[in-house]
Amino acid sequence: MTLAIGHPADHPGPMAFVDDLHRPALSDEDLHHLQRVLRQRAGDPLTVADGGGQWRTARLDPAAAGALTEFGPMCELPPATPALAVGFALVKGDKPELIVQKLTELGIDRIVPFRAERSVVRWDGAKAAKAVARLRLVARAAARQCHRPRLPEISEVVEVAELVAAGATMAERGGAPMSLQVPFVLVGPEGGWSPSESALAGDRVGLGAHVLRAETAAWTAAVLLASLRDGSIAQVHGL
Amino acid sequence: MTLAIGHPADHPGPMAFVDDLHRPALSDEDLHHLQRVLRQRAGDPLTVADGGGQWRTARLDPAAAGALTEFGPMCELPPATPALAVGFALVKGDKPELIVQKLTELGIDRIVPFRAERSVVRWDGAKAAKAVARLRLVARAAARQCHRPRLPEISEVVEVAELVAAGATMAERGGAPMSLQVPFVLVGPEGGWSPSESALAGDRVGLGAHVLRAETAAWTAAVLLASLRDGSIAQVHGL
Repeated sequence: MTLAIGHPADHPGPMAFVDDLHRPALSDEDLHHLQRVLRQRAGDPLTVADGGGQWRTARLDPAAAGALTEFGPMCELPPATPALAVGFALVKGDKPELIVQKLTELGIDRIVPFRAERSVVRWDGAKAAKAVARLRLVARAAARQCHRPRLPEISEVVEVAELVAAGATMAERGGAPMSLQVPFVLVGPEGGWSPSESALAGDRVGLGAHVLRAETAAWTAAVLLASLRDGSIAQVHGL
Repeated sequence: MTLAIGHPADHPGPMAFVDDLHRPALSDEDLHHLQRVLRQRAGDPLTVADGGGQWRTARLDPAAAGALTEFGPMCELPPATPALAVGFALVKGDKPELIVQKLTELGIDRIVPFRAERSVVRWDGAKAAKAVARLRLVARAAARQCHRPRLPEISEVVEVAELVAAGATMAERGGAPMSLQVPFVLVGPEGGWSPSESALAGDRVGLGAHVLRAETAAWTAAVLLASLRDGSIAQVHGL
């Protein structure tokens, strides 16, 4: 089937995620959000998306509370290339949620929480699973808010050495300028990389001249990668 | 007097602001922060800065609680050029504080809260003065944390039209790529610019393809301006 190409943000109304775009049905939570928070009424336009990049227009059905009607053709927002990934060291408080929220807004495709030696928090086993599930809900809410029809992948918590071995690049003060040749950047904890982490092989990218908090560093990496990919800035020289 | 050039972040220990670099004395609050939060002890190294870009190394005096000793030569972090400014529409909750915190970390020189027609919050008279005073404390705390010896200027709350008339550039989806020819960017409220604001004269800059929350837009503008200035990215074409 040929899909029309387009972006839900170019259509009126909010966006909601549904399980099946062919038979779209709103979750109770999304219906509540649309009606109570966004003040949508019967007949108002919206878009529905499947989280995988496909979406279509619809309206709240005046005839049946919570149902949808007047579906537009199936559309797709094609994946942007290269896929962008940002890993962040586990940090305390609500910072992981803020990181995931902003990275989702900025269009990062894969977000990877990892353990670093100087991570203040430890997520293991059940705690890690629960935290990752929570981060996936945060990504979904952020994607809905910014009309992003393709959800980012939120990976399970891994060890930093695994990511470096798989080709990810560590961010470090004084590293090379960011480039799309290294579209997977790892941002360390507030205390910096440990000596054994600093000894890991591979190139390093820098995030500018400033001393940044962990969450600011993750957002900075995301802004630079996304802006390089959409062509609004140019790289100085690649790694 | 000739000043040595350098950055406090390249010296060990935390940074604190003092009123007089020639006779540096810690405020009670800074002393508390150094001892209780950062666990600094007598003899530990730190740097002290005047908020105007000048700073020197010192140590906590083992002989007198809260006093400083062993002062290094007077140094300066010269101002970076061009000076960068970001204006943001008044937003609700703790977002103004988060915006000021991050823009300070990222090295923005002037931060300007402004009124827009679709600003949800209204700061007038005494409320505005109190809020701006609070934002200046936030900037000071953020600058201390990231070892930035030159405090950003936090302006009084103004009208957006005044800023545009003075040469600031409004950010809008679809605007031109960011460049250092427009080092003063205005980020609108969540609801976007009103028709009369959109009708204001002048060029527009874009912040990428994404739909961004107000605070994410302000941070994105700051990351791009700061990265262009420090040469870690290049502009595509200027306005």
